[in-house]
Amino acid sequence: MSQFEDLISFIRKDINRCIKRLPIPDSPAYLYDPIKYALKGRGKRFRPILAHLVGRANKIDPDSLMNVSLAIELLHNFTLIHDDIMDKDTIRHGQKTIHNKWDISTAILAGDGIYTIAQLILNNLNNENRQVIKCFNEVTLDICEGQALDKEFEGSQDITEDLYLEMVKKKTSSLISASAMLPSIINKDSKEITELYSLFGEYLGKGFQIHDDLLEITSDVKTMGKSLGSDIYEGKQTLLVIKAKINYKKNWNNIISELDQSDLKNNIYKFVNDKGILKDIKLTAESYFNKSRMVLKKLKHINTDELFQFIELVEKRTY
Amino acid sequence: MSQFEDLISFIRKDINRCIKRLPIPDSPAYLYDPIKYALKGRGKRFRPILAHLVGRANKIDPDSLMNVSLAIELLHNFTLIHDDIMDKDTIRHGQKTIHNKWDISTAILAGDGIYTIAQLILNNLNNENRQVIKCFNEVTLDICEGQALDKEFEGSQDITEDLYLEMVKKKTSSLISASAMLPSIINKDSKEITELYSLFGEYLGKGFQIHDDLLEITSDVKTMGKSLGSDIYEGKQTLLVIKAKINYKKNWNNIISELDQSDLKNNIYKFVNDKGILKDIKLTAESYFNKSRMVLKKLKHINTDELFQFIELVEKRTY
Repeated sequence: MSQFEDLISFIRKDINRCIKRLPIPDSPAYLYDPIKYALKGRGKRFRPILAHLVGRANKIDPDSLMNVSLAIELLHNFTLIHDDIMDKDTIRHGQKTIHNKWDISTAILAGDGIYTIAQLILNNLNNENRQVIKCFNEVTLDICEGQALDKEFEGSQDITEDLYLEMVKKKTSSLISASAMLPSIINKDSKEITELYSLFGEYLGKGFQIHDDLLEITSDVKTMGKSLGSDIYEGKQTLLVIKAKINYKKNWNNIISELDQSDLKNNIYKFVNDKGILKDIKLTAESYFNKSRMVLKKLKHINTDELFQFIELVEKRTY
Repeated sequence: MSQFEDLISFIRKDINRCIKRLPIPDSPAYLYDPIKYALKGRGKRFRPILAHLVGRANKIDPDSLMNVSLAIELLHNFTLIHDDIMDKDTIRHGQKTIHNKWDISTAILAGDGIYTIAQLILNNLNNENRQVIKCFNEVTLDICEGQALDKEFEGSQDITEDLYLEMVKKKTSSLISASAMLPSIINKDSKEITELYSLFGEYLGKGFQIHDDLLEITSDVKTMGKSLGSDIYEGKQTLLVIKAKINYKKNWNNIISELDQSDLKNNIYKFVNDKGILKDIKLTAESYFNKSRMVLKKLKHINTDELFQFIELVEKRTY
């Protein structure tokens, strides 16, 4: 493992330890059993790790940094739990989703509870926390809007690349932006500096999501820990689907409407690979990762080495 | 209309006007259409009205008072929307519930959005707001716990009156307590005084809920604006069910298990009336309203006239 990978692993363990130490009661079990289950630690913790790296670069108070990182991770888990219900996803991080293991009511309440605990954690921040909480809740509303757009787009035939990227900006980028911005807000940076972190997160988030859409086709279930290809079958928009539909509408519809769906993922993979769509999309993801690098270069007052390495980590991830 | 009823009507209109003026966007319609629908103003607004009355008695800043009242009402609506999904309720305030008019996904997201908007409104409070936000989120977690207990108790045969009241304390009283406490926290009252408001709300909330359970049997669908008797059929615990089961288990099971459920509400009404259970429960509700009056008497530093009248209003409500 490289020195940087060591660092990431160390931060992840630290975050997981603090999540484990959260004073989550045992009763009522109906509420807290699924919350504990959801937080058990299979997630990659990318977002709180990013917050930690920005916080380290700015030497912000470790307690505040951990609190804000935990709140970010809990917010992320809340949105995953509710999204999984809406998207009928049955597996997440290699284990059953809550509505699948229990039922929809349990999952709704678990999500509500986790989000509320996140708010209570934020309330423990040292010093003035109004701007931090404001950003946190604005981002939550952005994520809700992104999920709403995602649902609106489902099955639609005329979603453009621009509309898709607008959705990704809200649904995925906003929380990655927040992970970079919140330590900057705690640090009382100028608005201009905080905006740079936001933009860095926006590009990184877009690269992350497009890369994620690719993994849906190029990875396997065991590595990814979730069902694959099904999103596409359910009519979810990804850049891959949009590009395939725009350029090869008839062929695409033939693949999707085939009666035997057991080989769907492989059929899609072969098609998008042959037609050069896969390569095209890889280049698009790469362009966003590079844009995030360009923004980082403007942050001249801090040591950005670890943040550059973080981009590389996200760019190269295979799960 | 009495002078007090005039005042309540005035405050309700003021609250509804401010809800209408909330800067809720039009797009994405998937998120904001159901949110606007939910907030359209059929609710009784009991909780923000209570906050207003406590705020008036303490002469707290009107802007802060309105902000905290709006946040309370939005929190209430968020819990109703999610509870209605979990409880499969189809009608609320005389109109279709969101998951009934749209679908479950839409309702989950609308609830999440409303709760987030409530947090953003709280963030606008003047001066130091940390204690206010802390109380607000602790109460939200209480409500989640109360709903969890309610779900755990469903269909159970051995729920006691004490367990039921513990559930009501969390699910219903906590937000009524918060409506009385939050203006006191804004007012920077001593901990002892704020605790009195909390206790006042706890008793008022218990009276309110027991009275509500009675209306389920004594009122009609048109007046209540929601389906009646169905909760009992679904196995929900109410004080009436608990008392009937403890004292007349066999007769009760016969009523509930009758094949033809079209007359369920009337059958239950006749039974609990004949056996004196109805009267017994009315006395229990009355005792809690009286306990809330006793607590009010300890608040000697403010004019509590309007709060006493508010208790009477809640006690006498028929819908």
